[in-house]
Amino acid sequence: MQENKNSQESLKEILQQINKLLEKHKLVVNLVHKQEMPKHQLVENLVHKQNLRELHKLLDSLHPADVAYILEALPLDHRLYIWEFVKADRDGDILLEVSDAVRQTLIADMDSSELLAAAEQLDTDEIADIAADLPKDVLQDLMESLDSQNRDRLKSALSYPEESVGALMDFDIVTIRDDITIEVALKYLRRLDHLPSLTDKIFVVNRNGTLLGVLPLKKIVINEPELEVAKVMVIDVVLFHPEDIARDAATAFERYDLVTAPVVNQDKKLIGRITVDAVMDYIRDEAESDKLSMAGLREEEDLFSSTWKSIQNRWSWLAINLVTALMASRVIGLFEGSIAKVSALAALMPIVAGIGGNSGNQTTTMIVRALALGQVSLQNIRSLIYKEIGVALLNGLLWGGILGLIAFALYGNYKLGLVMTGAMTLNLLLASVMGVLVPLLMSKYGKDPAVGSSVLLTAMTDSGGFFIFLGLATIILL
Amino acid sequence: MQENKNSQESLKEILQQINKLLEKHKLVVNLVHKQEMPKHQLVENLVHKQNLRELHKLLDSLHPADVAYILEALPLDHRLYIWEFVKADRDGDILLEVSDAVRQTLIADMDSSELLAAAEQLDTDEIADIAADLPKDVLQDLMESLDSQNRDRLKSALSYPEESVGALMDFDIVTIRDDITIEVALKYLRRLDHLPSLTDKIFVVNRNGTLLGVLPLKKIVINEPELEVAKVMVIDVVLFHPEDIARDAATAFERYDLVTAPVVNQDKKLIGRITVDAVMDYIRDEAESDKLSMAGLREEEDLFSSTWKSIQNRWSWLAINLVTALMASRVIGLFEGSIAKVSALAALMPIVAGIGGNSGNQTTTMIVRALALGQVSLQNIRSLIYKEIGVALLNGLLWGGILGLIAFALYGNYKLGLVMTGAMTLNLLLASVMGVLVPLLMSKYGKDPAVGSSVLLTAMTDSGGFFIFLGLATIILL
Repeated sequence: MQENKNSQESLKEILQQINKLLEKHKLVVNLVHKQEMPKHQLVENLVHKQNLRELHKLLDSLHPADVAYILEALPLDHRLYIWEFVKADRDGDILLEVSDAVRQTLIADMDSSELLAAAEQLDTDEIADIAADLPKDVLQDLMESLDSQNRDRLKSALSYPEESVGALMDFDIVTIRDDITIEVALKYLRRLDHLPSLTDKIFVVNRNGTLLGVLPLKKIVINEPELEVAKVMVIDVVLFHPEDIARDAATAFERYDLVTAPVVNQDKKLIGRITVDAVMDYIRDEAESDKLSMAGLREEEDLFSSTWKSIQNRWSWLAINLVTALMASRVIGLFEGSIAKVSALAALMPIVAGIGGNSGNQTTTMIVRALALGQVSLQNIRSLIYKEIGVALLNGLLWGGILGLIAFALYGNYKLGLVMTGAMTLNLLLASVMGVLVPLLMSKYGKDPAVGSSVLLTAMTDSGGFFIFLGLATIILL
Repeated sequence: MQENKNSQESLKEILQQINKLLEKHKLVVNLVHKQEMPKHQLVENLVHKQNLRELHKLLDSLHPADVAYILEALPLDHRLYIWEFVKADRDGDILLEVSDAVRQTLIADMDSSELLAAAEQLDTDEIADIAADLPKDVLQDLMESLDSQNRDRLKSALSYPEESVGALMDFDIVTIRDDITIEVALKYLRRLDHLPSLTDKIFVVNRNGTLLGVLPLKKIVINEPELEVAKVMVIDVVLFHPEDIARDAATAFERYDLVTAPVVNQDKKLIGRITVDAVMDYIRDEAESDKLSMAGLREEEDLFSSTWKSIQNRWSWLAINLVTALMASRVIGLFEGSIAKVSALAALMPIVAGIGGNSGNQTTTMIVRALALGQVSLQNIRSLIYKEIGVALLNGLLWGGILGLIAFALYGNYKLGLVMTGAMTLNLLLASVMGVLVPLLMSKYGKDPAVGSSVLLTAMTDSGGFFIFLGLATIILL
């Protein structure tokens, strides 16, 4: 089967084509429903048959990753219809490529035997990637169908936490000894049908499977065949342990431009490898999940998931914000007397709170980034806070000054203008200090600062902003 | 020079070590300043010499990417001090690895001849990457120092826009003809000193330089030497044009697990290649800049940049938010009469606006993501809006209902509770529709929806929320 690889543009066109075929199909099916066409006629209908044939041909020509893309972009009914059409021998590869949310909808539509057949097409490490979505009995049957080496591998792959190197690792390793020549190595490699995808180096091990070095294919190709592997191999290797943190491995891949890297156990015995495509998927997933969690989405959401599923995915964030909003509301409640007297306060107070939140979030974003890169240490916290306080002070006087003038222009009360300027400056100072401290404290207590910092900070600048502004106003104006 | 590669953990330790050496150094220098130690004694001071030697050794042992990491994490004065210590022959590689903001601080500290020397160590495509930060006269001198092929390459590399494949491309291509055998190819390759980094395939071209196919090293290694290249090479190649969009190339690299891919011009003539490390850097940069711009930071900010630079980087976002906050404030201003009568309204109104913004941003984040993946089309906009309206309606009744009860409990006014529930539901509906439409319209009119959607949406849910809540209250309560 020739699998064409497609540009993003041509994929969009294919998606449109499939949508059109599905529309036509719907039309015919609707006719049957309305009993304007007997059912047996549908099956015999030439146009219909032609459509289906076209669809089959189109899908068969696509790379599994492209079929996955199409499935992601279709509403549930169309998605499952297309899923039926995909050749069963490609189910496994496609399940691997779709997002978690979409995989769940596809798996829900398959029976145990179909699932077992699909999973059996996959490598052990790939099974581990989708294991969480498989029904327990299917996973059990699958375990039993594996030989003991692969069963052990699957068990150990499943035992590593999601954020570890073990979870990124695969087992497609080709090994040779160090006491043979390049020529013998070449002969050995030529006996293999093919090398695992992304192979850029062969791993050199001793009799016990201990890693001695790596032999890049580049070195095989440019060195004289008579040389011994031991002479040519690279000894200074970037290697990982399965319990290492995946994020650090990703950093190393970026920093040292790696394609594959060996994974060894405590005794330096080679147990697997990491490839750059696994790392790239990891980086992409991390970036996506950061973005999602910053907006308060618990996980990747299937674009066409049910209303109910969406609500489940989003409710916790709304609940947290409801609580912080209620707190801010109670702060305002303390000053209802002042507001009743000077109702202009009600119109001006959200500005103070809002700009504080925006400014604080700028600081927090900087700090979260620096924390992720490991650039924040005890030595430099103080200079960071000083800098942010400087920025806040200048911004406060600048924007606060402008707002003070606007408030004076609107309400003709110079004291109100002064309150505005003062409150803005104070709230920006609060925002700057909290913007540094909140992510630092979260990371110190083992929480991911990327996730909750913004909510916590905004809660402070909201409640704080209202309190500072209304408090100042009550003192100065009343 | 042996360059050790380090884990994130050991890098942090090295950073601490350097910080300690710098502290010691400062102490000694301070003594000189206070004239407690004559200057010539400083240079002769044994401890001092020992420190400097240690620092030199440490820095020389580090990979350029690791030196870059250290430089990023140091305040400006320490950074420049360390920069002085780095061997001049590594300046180029390190300049390539640091972020734009930090590169500017380093370049500002170098004179023209140092810069020229550093740049001359780099490949043409690498020079293009840092060209924007180089002074014009240095770039001019550099151009003149290149041979005509490389000058043309540099010119063309500089001519491609930042988001194009041309900007990611390098020129490290090894080519062979298709009418030779594997054995001859191997002989040819062995005559080369080394292959470019990340080489996983040799490009097969004809006499005119037209790309015919690619020969993966894997295929060289596993096929019999007598076979002809034409028989072994892969013809179905993922290839790019320099004017292609970088983002699409990145998607293709992820989708098809590529390590390198050829770049050809309109006539299918091979002009360069893209490597997975360039793609990975691109993906990381994209993700970072998305995060920064969502928080309203114009660009990557040097953690220790001056207060003034930080303010420049952040002011435009604050200005925009000031305008939207003022608009919302004027909406409240319309209802000051109502607020003066029922001051509870002032305490409750930020809740309606805030939850609307949160909920709308969840929707927008989903849509922005789907747009980036190309999953949104005319066919499915309607079903997306329906779904979001469904979510908003249920959320509105749920959270609005809870808030209505709370408002009733707090103020003992059932009408106020009704206003709260109604306003929440209406504002969430507004948020859901706008959450879908704002990013769609932005992308339709050629703006990046990831950047401005959130501000625009929050402006609508703020002003809209205040208007809906206070308007309803004025009608029902007064």
